[in-house]
Amino acid sequence: MAWNQIDSVKNPKVKNVKRLMKRKFREREQQFVIEGWHLLKEAAAHDVTISDVFIEEDKDIPDDVKLSGLPVSTVTKQVMQEMSRTETPQGVAAICRMPEDTGLEVHSSHTYLLIDGVQDPGNLGTMIRTADAAGITAVILGEGTVDGYNDKVVRATQGSLFHMPVLKAELEEWLESCRAHKIPVFGTSVNEGTSHTAIGAQKGFALLVGNEGAGVQQSLLDEADQNIYVPIYGNAESLNVSVASGILLYHLKQPY
Amino acid sequence: MAWNQIDSVKNPKVKNVKRLMKRKFREREQQFVIEGWHLLKEAAAHDVTISDVFIEEDKDIPDDVKLSGLPVSTVTKQVMQEMSRTETPQGVAAICRMPEDTGLEVHSSHTYLLIDGVQDPGNLGTMIRTADAAGITAVILGEGTVDGYNDKVVRATQGSLFHMPVLKAELEEWLESCRAHKIPVFGTSVNEGTSHTAIGAQKGFALLVGNEGAGVQQSLLDEADQNIYVPIYGNAESLNVSVASGILLYHLKQPY
Repeated sequence: MAWNQIDSVKNPKVKNVKRLMKRKFREREQQFVIEGWHLLKEAAAHDVTISDVFIEEDKDIPDDVKLSGLPVSTVTKQVMQEMSRTETPQGVAAICRMPEDTGLEVHSSHTYLLIDGVQDPGNLGTMIRTADAAGITAVILGEGTVDGYNDKVVRATQGSLFHMPVLKAELEEWLESCRAHKIPVFGTSVNEGTSHTAIGAQKGFALLVGNEGAGVQQSLLDEADQNIYVPIYGNAESLNVSVASGILLYHLKQPY
Repeated sequence: MAWNQIDSVKNPKVKNVKRLMKRKFREREQQFVIEGWHLLKEAAAHDVTISDVFIEEDKDIPDDVKLSGLPVSTVTKQVMQEMSRTETPQGVAAICRMPEDTGLEVHSSHTYLLIDGVQDPGNLGTMIRTADAAGITAVILGEGTVDGYNDKVVRATQGSLFHMPVLKAELEEWLESCRAHKIPVFGTSVNEGTSHTAIGAQKGFALLVGNEGAGVQQSLLDEADQNIYVPIYGNAESLNVSVASGILLYHLKQPY
């Protein structure tokens, strides 16, 4: 295999990876960076366009990783450290292309997770992973939400980012669209609404969850059909937003 | 107020805080460190013995924080940075005493979360917070689980560590004790058992959850009355352990 070798942290490809740590460049280039063998496998398995793979020299390549056809460069340990955002780099990184926004046909039996202003990348990544596990149709990221292609978000999704549409969009428009398709929208609020235990499973639904501290914006809550909350039986002030989302998604989802 | 002033990072109290970053010292001294105004308020409100409070000089003290009777030292910014484990220190830290292990009377109508080998401090802290929210009686940390007094765990609990018993114990003995009190024990396993959706709410129960990668040890699963899992409807391989615990605790818990 005639792989390209990169020895210098000043190599343009290395600089490109570092630039892609910034949201502005990711959006301009429509590219993002993944790290680790598992994510590389997931990206390849889900037809993500991979424009560069970087493997640290002398690293063992797992048997189930197929690199044929991929533009691989080997890099020195120093170069990998420069590119990596993880504490213990696995020795592999790649540049992926964001999927084309082909639009999404809203359907009354589909299920959506609408996210308003979640800030913690670990929370957002975990929420995308949970939505995938629960078989949710798509995740919609409203303005003010951390970028879905942030490296910590991508890592926390464990590949779920590649399994279903995760879109940036205006939540107001989504709420309108749900209404037009008669999809019940459940807002979430600690202070008002109905305990989720009083609501049954739904064929189609949209669940609207919000920022770690401030919750969902009032203007959006006002547009929901119903506001629900997870009751606090003990002395905690609230639940972590990714845990609350998991409880609600699995409660609303019809088992099959 | 005649508060002590600490200017040097070599002050013995500063060294003590740094030593308490290590589990070994925490266990020997039966002390741990908290950071932030919210945790300080929670500790004080729940009768935790606070042996030292450190406040960065020139920091505003929130109106609802009561410091009378507490042994406060003001410290320089540099000293606070030396003591802090957070990226953006709030300017307050304190040394707390671990609660006495007074034993816990097991009761058939009580609910327990048994944790086997969870490694990520954020996960464990979130699980303790969720157990508190769900009104669980006590959380039991088995051997191999990250220390409940680790700074990241304490932070992620958001004070729930002070709201209910969180004990280190032999899980085998707890399983026996549950059996003796006829408390149903639900093990969790991705591979075997019954979907949680087939199980109803329980008056008393113990939920046994495990390590992020390996799950619950087989020898413990064998002791459970029944193994349950959260079904994966989509393409994710698994759920985050703190999300899965939240779904199961709220599913098993009787609403009230």
